[in-house]
Amino acid sequence: MAKRKIIRKKTTVAKSKASPRDRKTLASLETLADGVERAARRKREPQLDIPSRTLSNVRYSPRKRIIEMGSNINQRHLFNLSQAKAYMQTILIGSGCKKLIDQGKTLSIRGLYYMLKHKIEGTKENTFEEQSDCDPIIEDVEVMLNSLREELHLYADKRGDMVGNITIIDQGDQIDCSRMGSGGYAIPSIVEPEVIKLDRKNCDAKFVLHVEKGTVWQRFNEDKFWKTHNCILTHGAGQPPRGVRRMLNRLNTELKLPVYCLLDNDPWGYYIYSVIKQGSINLAFESQRMAIPDARYLGLRSIDLERCDLSPSVMIALNDNDKKRAGQIANYPWFLKKRAWQREIARMLKNDFKLEVEALISKDISYVTETYVPERLSAKDWLD
Amino acid sequence: MAKRKIIRKKTTVAKSKASPRDRKTLASLETLADGVERAARRKREPQLDIPSRTLSNVRYSPRKRIIEMGSNINQRHLFNLSQAKAYMQTILIGSGCKKLIDQGKTLSIRGLYYMLKHKIEGTKENTFEEQSDCDPIIEDVEVMLNSLREELHLYADKRGDMVGNITIIDQGDQIDCSRMGSGGYAIPSIVEPEVIKLDRKNCDAKFVLHVEKGTVWQRFNEDKFWKTHNCILTHGAGQPPRGVRRMLNRLNTELKLPVYCLLDNDPWGYYIYSVIKQGSINLAFESQRMAIPDARYLGLRSIDLERCDLSPSVMIALNDNDKKRAGQIANYPWFLKKRAWQREIARMLKNDFKLEVEALISKDISYVTETYVPERLSAKDWLD
Repeated sequence: MAKRKIIRKKTTVAKSKASPRDRKTLASLETLADGVERAARRKREPQLDIPSRTLSNVRYSPRKRIIEMGSNINQRHLFNLSQAKAYMQTILIGSGCKKLIDQGKTLSIRGLYYMLKHKIEGTKENTFEEQSDCDPIIEDVEVMLNSLREELHLYADKRGDMVGNITIIDQGDQIDCSRMGSGGYAIPSIVEPEVIKLDRKNCDAKFVLHVEKGTVWQRFNEDKFWKTHNCILTHGAGQPPRGVRRMLNRLNTELKLPVYCLLDNDPWGYYIYSVIKQGSINLAFESQRMAIPDARYLGLRSIDLERCDLSPSVMIALNDNDKKRAGQIANYPWFLKKRAWQREIARMLKNDFKLEVEALISKDISYVTETYVPERLSAKDWLD
Repeated sequence: MAKRKIIRKKTTVAKSKASPRDRKTLASLETLADGVERAARRKREPQLDIPSRTLSNVRYSPRKRIIEMGSNINQRHLFNLSQAKAYMQTILIGSGCKKLIDQGKTLSIRGLYYMLKHKIEGTKENTFEEQSDCDPIIEDVEVMLNSLREELHLYADKRGDMVGNITIIDQGDQIDCSRMGSGGYAIPSIVEPEVIKLDRKNCDAKFVLHVEKGTVWQRFNEDKFWKTHNCILTHGAGQPPRGVRRMLNRLNTELKLPVYCLLDNDPWGYYIYSVIKQGSINLAFESQRMAIPDARYLGLRSIDLERCDLSPSVMIALNDNDKKRAGQIANYPWFLKKRAWQREIARMLKNDFKLEVEALISKDISYVTETYVPERLSAKDWLD
């Protein structure tokens, strides 16, 4: 009963202020708390059903073309010595997220950890010892409630910028991404529709070019590629963070913009593409709202040393880890049946070298913006 | 003579287009090339005088309150087997930067490396093998010409965002930083006056609050701290990159805004403050245009566990490296004579724990924005 009281606090206030999505998340959190109460009333053991986040419960759906979670469930019991702490932590995270939604605030996962960390009264135990105790429980709550982390009012570190022929509304501010100078608009970590409004009417761009690195993005922005090719230009400073992936997903699904990814010709570039396109294996449950099955790989190719007549000095030898990762990626189910990808990866292994996008600078400073990408686009020469 | 021809190519075109600052940098590059030619004409050995970037040639100027380079010079000779390659590389970097200025383009240091890397005709030698061969030579050229990297048209990776009561002009685009939503304006890596125009008339803000991490910045932006306290809010995603440091420097020197730094109570936070304030030891020659001797440390303090009545659960034990670093930082000449800093560091070592800014969340989600920072500011309670 005590638990229910804590979790229910301020609900009336919150419901009146909260957005429809917040109300939905709050309802899920209350259902979670109700389950505890119901079990107590019936004098039954409180337990939680948590979808299993193990690799064996992840599968690729060829129909939806995304990585999905299977239906395996783990039960977490309060009256089980080895599970009691995790049970308590799960309820604690739930109550913390409810507090955030009630107050209309958001926090980093580091912040939530600090908010909830305390010594449990009458014991010498802390609720959490380390951030690493807290993170998997946050993921448990996400899958259990089928809520994105952002819907629980939690944000990640933000990286990645955007410019181009689109105007968006960010918390009421109109951001014209075609007038953002050399710096650009910094993509926030929470880009859900409550925060960021996208409207086809305010978007002239015909596609999105997503590049791997900020330094390459600067080259494209300086050459005003997005202006001459009428597009949106984004980067994610390496593996794009959740905010950038979700932004790309919304540009693709809501505004129907094709997404082209300019990445390095190496296993890391392939992997970034795989996560953007099919979703991440670790966080498979979020694929439905993060993955972009239609994304296209416009990155450097294993034939480019010859095709573009690059100087041999730009080759970077593959190391053992590269070779191992390439083999693993070739065996991903979504690459396994694609002959073009199998050829691409086999050729890279045969080359025994990788190529960075910056290698094109050896031809000319603006070869990548004036020749490489325009030629690939007009020849529809990408990997799917 | 051949070298001079290469270096001089396109100068006439460039000079007409180039900004006054570009013309100055071009003139330095030409003086460099002229020296080579003059030596050749006089049948003397070509050599370069490069200010020494060793630690022993770095000193703290108590008058200017920045780290400066001393007057030691290393000579680099063409006709010396152990120096010939570095000599050639130095001239090559110079010619590469000239090409960039001539074309009105900028490049990352990675890009410059690719642009200049090639097999030397008639040999099996590459001009550079690795990025790490190229980077120190770039720094040599910077100090030799007394030009910031940005003036050589080279950029670093960019990180860090800005919001607040200021409107700037970035390459002709007017950026109103008070209307940048939750994402913010992404601070570019080159913020020299040719790119970014600052004007006291377009700035209502009374100070700059620089916070260490993007996640903390999000908390301050969400609470619209910059609006209630009429300031500018920046972060640098950890150790701020050059673009952010130079932006803070310009806001301080040109717009006369005080800069307050909200950093963690740990040696890393102290070190970030030291670099922002006095300059970096490795790149001492740039301090004059990067350092902010008037910056103030508003970060967490060693007394805060008690002063703010924080839960003991937020303490993070110091590790051996923390202790070693703390000792080194206490001995920096600019901290050595400051009793408040000596007390601060000694107290942290006695505490045997560190405190992150996020630890304040254990009090309340918005304690840092509503209580901690406003109280410190109104009590003028900072370290200098």
